[in-house]
Amino acid sequence: MLYIGVDLGGTKIAAGIVDENGQILFKDSIFTKSERPFEQVAADMASLILSIIQKAGYSMSDIGGIGIGSPGAIDNEHGVVVFANNLGWHNVKLRSELQKYINLPIYMENDANVAGLAESVFGAGQGIKNAIALTLGTGIGGAIIINGKIYGGTHHVGAELGHLIVQVDGGRQCTCGNSGCWERYASATALINFGKEAVLEHPDSMILKLTNGNPDGINAKIIEDAARAGDQIAVEIFDRYIYYLAMGIISIINAFDPEVIIIGGGVSGAGDFLLKPLIEKVKEHIFYKELDYADIRLAKLGNDAGIIGAAMLATNKYLI
Amino acid sequence: MLYIGVDLGGTKIAAGIVDENGQILFKDSIFTKSERPFEQVAADMASLILSIIQKAGYSMSDIGGIGIGSPGAIDNEHGVVVFANNLGWHNVKLRSELQKYINLPIYMENDANVAGLAESVFGAGQGIKNAIALTLGTGIGGAIIINGKIYGGTHHVGAELGHLIVQVDGGRQCTCGNSGCWERYASATALINFGKEAVLEHPDSMILKLTNGNPDGINAKIIEDAARAGDQIAVEIFDRYIYYLAMGIISIINAFDPEVIIIGGGVSGAGDFLLKPLIEKVKEHIFYKELDYADIRLAKLGNDAGIIGAAMLATNKYLI
Repeated sequence: MLYIGVDLGGTKIAAGIVDENGQILFKDSIFTKSERPFEQVAADMASLILSIIQKAGYSMSDIGGIGIGSPGAIDNEHGVVVFANNLGWHNVKLRSELQKYINLPIYMENDANVAGLAESVFGAGQGIKNAIALTLGTGIGGAIIINGKIYGGTHHVGAELGHLIVQVDGGRQCTCGNSGCWERYASATALINFGKEAVLEHPDSMILKLTNGNPDGINAKIIEDAARAGDQIAVEIFDRYIYYLAMGIISIINAFDPEVIIIGGGVSGAGDFLLKPLIEKVKEHIFYKELDYADIRLAKLGNDAGIIGAAMLATNKYLI
Repeated sequence: MLYIGVDLGGTKIAAGIVDENGQILFKDSIFTKSERPFEQVAADMASLILSIIQKAGYSMSDIGGIGIGSPGAIDNEHGVVVFANNLGWHNVKLRSELQKYINLPIYMENDANVAGLAESVFGAGQGIKNAIALTLGTGIGGAIIINGKIYGGTHHVGAELGHLIVQVDGGRQCTCGNSGCWERYASATALINFGKEAVLEHPDSMILKLTNGNPDGINAKIIEDAARAGDQIAVEIFDRYIYYLAMGIISIINAFDPEVIIIGGGVSGAGDFLLKPLIEKVKEHIFYKELDYADIRLAKLGNDAGIIGAAMLATNKYLI
């Protein structure tokens, strides 16, 4: 049996046909144009799904179901996008709308959760029961996999691990309204902000040379490159970033004691340059030093994780 | 069917006969004397179990099994106390030792986890699937209940919620070797420390009057009493304590999105004087302000939670 995975984003909707081994057999995408009434977005999504089945040469009877990974708080039981800021959706009955066009079972979950599921089953965490997946991007996305299944929380807003409070006194202001959230210290955005702040005081840093003197050109890769090249300011920033990343991971280990922590997203592109010192830093700060603890690994599936994880939903085996 | 619950502590071993509704029908206790070889402690524990069955007028055939709540990292699968600091035990094969004396199924879990289970099923969280239980005492104990079952982690050291890192820069030193752990800010010990620190600068505070001028006499109840009486220093300390407690709870909500958070332990004796401002503070800082989130409640079962939760283990229905 094959399954359709849909990765619904603020900009693009990607959909793929996925087999039971997590392989994408065919995929395609369209623009979301989320400023339209949601019924139009849903109609386009349905067309995309039907078109990939046809283009790939399958019939409806080959497809066991459809899974959708959506940003925001997703209520699979009722088929509703409860709240999705970057789609501008609030209590949108996406499943019943799609079922006007498609007569197949449709399952829904948060996009970060399904991507984490895909990594934990077919990516970096194969054979693992308890995993936490982190995406180091604009913020920090989280997914909690317990007993091989997604734990999404009671009100569909669990696994917001970027909003663990890591600085109760004098914390940096977060977009969520709180201060001291972990993603203000350990997301790609945080790393970039550390760079921008540092070059104000150290305009001679290689960081600024790599952007031709333009602080707005600083990104995570430039700080990584300058640190690899031994620029002292960049090394200090990167070390500090790894410390903050490690401390949040310590919290996650102390709370969830997972078997594996999977690191994805932009900053994870640094590979071993990030992973090795991170593993060392976690080791220094681990609570039960005599016991085993979570293995920390880099994500493997990249952007495909969203489609693969969404398709896995459609097997109806992966939700707690 | 009846079950035996054993609450193994560093000072005392308490055991009770518990029915399927979580009622303790009979209980008794002995001193642990944990400095002895563990075989002697296990022999005494077995005698205690056999004696309560006899004293309460039951026979072995009335008992479905035995559950043990032990401090530390507990491996139920192998029947081993992996590590229990306050017993001085390391890789102790407790189950096989007890089975020399008792021919009944024996289950084991961490004591905080079983107490949280009892609260979530028969105490403050009846009918709840996803709950977090917190014990505000010397440290902060945690229990994670998912789908009505204990989630203890991969290496049996999950739910150490007192060691969520809440202050990455300039955090208070913790007994675990790290700095900035939540229990340095929101345990009973933390509240007492805030009091001791404050009276150094404000010796005229009512806090010190209530201890006849002896800072070592400060406890959580005295700070609560002084705050209730309107002592300004005590009010400030209590407010600050509630802020720190709320911020950790915000992290827990953002990570676990539970249905209920159950607060027990010494500080929870303050009742509504703690609970009401805590609920207000959490409301101020919650991430998804338009959605429902965890109800925060006081624990109901007190010290009996340990025996009841341990007995529940013996039904073999409550472990993930």
